[in-house]
Amino acid sequence: MKALRFYGNRDVRVDDNVPEPVISKPTDVLIAPQWCGICGSDLHEFLGGPTFCPTHPHSLTADKIPVVLGHEFSGIVLAVGSEVSEIVVGDKVCVEATQRCEECANCRSGRTNCCVYGPAFYGLTGLGGGLAEKVVIPVSHVFKLPSDLPVAYGALVEPLSVAWHAVELSGFKPGMTALVLGSGPIGIATILCLQAMGAKTIIVSEPAVGRRKQAEEFDVDFVINPFEEDVVAKVKEILKGEGAERSYDCSGIQATFQASVAALAAGGIAMNIALWEKPTQYNPMDTLVRERVIMGSIGYTGRDFAAVIAAIADGRLKGFEKMITARIPMEDTVSVGYDGLINNKEKHIKILCTPFPELLK
Amino acid sequence: MKALRFYGNRDVRVDDNVPEPVISKPTDVLIAPQWCGICGSDLHEFLGGPTFCPTHPHSLTADKIPVVLGHEFSGIVLAVGSEVSEIVVGDKVCVEATQRCEECANCRSGRTNCCVYGPAFYGLTGLGGGLAEKVVIPVSHVFKLPSDLPVAYGALVEPLSVAWHAVELSGFKPGMTALVLGSGPIGIATILCLQAMGAKTIIVSEPAVGRRKQAEEFDVDFVINPFEEDVVAKVKEILKGEGAERSYDCSGIQATFQASVAALAAGGIAMNIALWEKPTQYNPMDTLVRERVIMGSIGYTGRDFAAVIAAIADGRLKGFEKMITARIPMEDTVSVGYDGLINNKEKHIKILCTPFPELLK
Repeated sequence: MKALRFYGNRDVRVDDNVPEPVISKPTDVLIAPQWCGICGSDLHEFLGGPTFCPTHPHSLTADKIPVVLGHEFSGIVLAVGSEVSEIVVGDKVCVEATQRCEECANCRSGRTNCCVYGPAFYGLTGLGGGLAEKVVIPVSHVFKLPSDLPVAYGALVEPLSVAWHAVELSGFKPGMTALVLGSGPIGIATILCLQAMGAKTIIVSEPAVGRRKQAEEFDVDFVINPFEEDVVAKVKEILKGEGAERSYDCSGIQATFQASVAALAAGGIAMNIALWEKPTQYNPMDTLVRERVIMGSIGYTGRDFAAVIAAIADGRLKGFEKMITARIPMEDTVSVGYDGLINNKEKHIKILCTPFPELLK
Repeated sequence: MKALRFYGNRDVRVDDNVPEPVISKPTDVLIAPQWCGICGSDLHEFLGGPTFCPTHPHSLTADKIPVVLGHEFSGIVLAVGSEVSEIVVGDKVCVEATQRCEECANCRSGRTNCCVYGPAFYGLTGLGGGLAEKVVIPVSHVFKLPSDLPVAYGALVEPLSVAWHAVELSGFKPGMTALVLGSGPIGIATILCLQAMGAKTIIVSEPAVGRRKQAEEFDVDFVINPFEEDVVAKVKEILKGEGAERSYDCSGIQATFQASVAALAAGGIAMNIALWEKPTQYNPMDTLVRERVIMGSIGYTGRDFAAVIAAIADGRLKGFEKMITARIPMEDTVSVGYDGLINNKEKHIKILCTPFPELLK
């Protein structure tokens, strides 16, 4: 079959003769991926990796480079194992991509995203992914989409689950105020989840003009340009008090980290969703004097997938489909997709790729 | 009257002719302080201050240098205002020293320790303190001690409340495991509060031999010398897993901060109780990959005083009186007290001073 595979730094290829995966366990589900988003971690892997893609057999997957890419995908069920009853052939599904051991203390306690052998994902650490004509996934990772939902929208469940997990982990409650630092793809997903969870006021800080415009299109309350305004002072002014109840750092640089803490009211929580490449400076007095809290969130669990699908089904994730800014064939993933997200990032949020070019007609 | 007053950096004097405070409001309580502990912040103020002691009229107290020192004190009630009924003359009491406006959003929400005009304390920012023959304190700050408790022990309620507040704010629950970094006075108070709240395992990391010995005398489960052992590896080995559920940084240096985070299990909370003099390095990936949490705690509220007094009364704060390592007259506060805590700190936990030398007989 045809699949997009990662071979190494700046070496991603469309292969025509990848062995087809087959159902080997009674709990397996064979899926034909229809649409797959490109994630920031795909770009990190391409430009600066391999980080996730294993150069030696991975402790969880036993797989290694070349591995099939694509972890934000939806598809159609082609076949199911003998013990699978909740999913049937023809169902529209999406895939909760976290690979884990199911046996460590973190997996057993439900923190499957913190498996001691992770972080690992289908579409990065082996055993197949969404940028292929077929993939086999255990049924515990397969989530049914509403039958009337366009299957392409199902590819957004994964990035929305990243944001949903972070917002829920931060203890966000209806009526709260929030500052979102950075309105790239994860920032936009965070905004959507905050709106779905009943935010009172959402303030976005974003230096890029195109991304500020995107944030405005998602109906946030205030958009700040941190190059022109003092973010912390502006947040306090808007909220008429000491600051926001929650902040979400979707950028991961010194300036956003410091604002994410300083712009909080007493007892506020600064949640980091960004991946960091190097340490930052932190003054513990900034949390101490107002008893602020710093947290980090990674990935998601199955509970987040279920919650996001429910919020899509009942309309709480209003306008989430606007995250899709382009649809391209899998063959163009690097030349058009990666290139667009790297060199024209203010124009794009999510670029979806398909292994089946006829879907583009 | 006689009082110990702060005039400036390394300038603390016993004054003989300080005006006596008098009851001026119906909610005032006139107290004769009996015993007053020396706090780390007193030493900071003496060696590196003034930080808290106001050189200009303070926004909360309108008072300024010279100010009476002493914020960890107990005493006997000499007189009460016309509206005070819960406290009577002759009662043994201690004083919740946080000064606050009672009007800002933080005060109104019960976070009186985060008053926007603070942090401020009786005995540092003016309006009298515990190192004087008399002090007037509003009844809302006055807490009655059990009648059979030696009044000297009441001077420990304040430092124990600092630790109690931090341990409770960290969401500590019976049966949890904890790492305490630094077993100086606040570290010891933290150990006592963790024991009172039903800790399963307490591990202490402390580089100074004398302080390790003190920690052992308070019956902690394991004591680590961080100069000889890898704290993080040792914690994981002792707890047979990924780490502790809670950590308490009572030192405030780069090494303790990093260990306080890295030694945590997934979802664990690193609570900082130390005052920091400069920023530290922080890698947000250290919290992100295991969804750890960083918090800070400052001071206490009246609820903590009530909780500590209740825990003293019913015996949960077992052995807390061992914190007292010396008793001296107020005149010797600097020459013996400060000197002992600075130059002989491995020998001391709390040195109590009294304005009434006859109490030493």
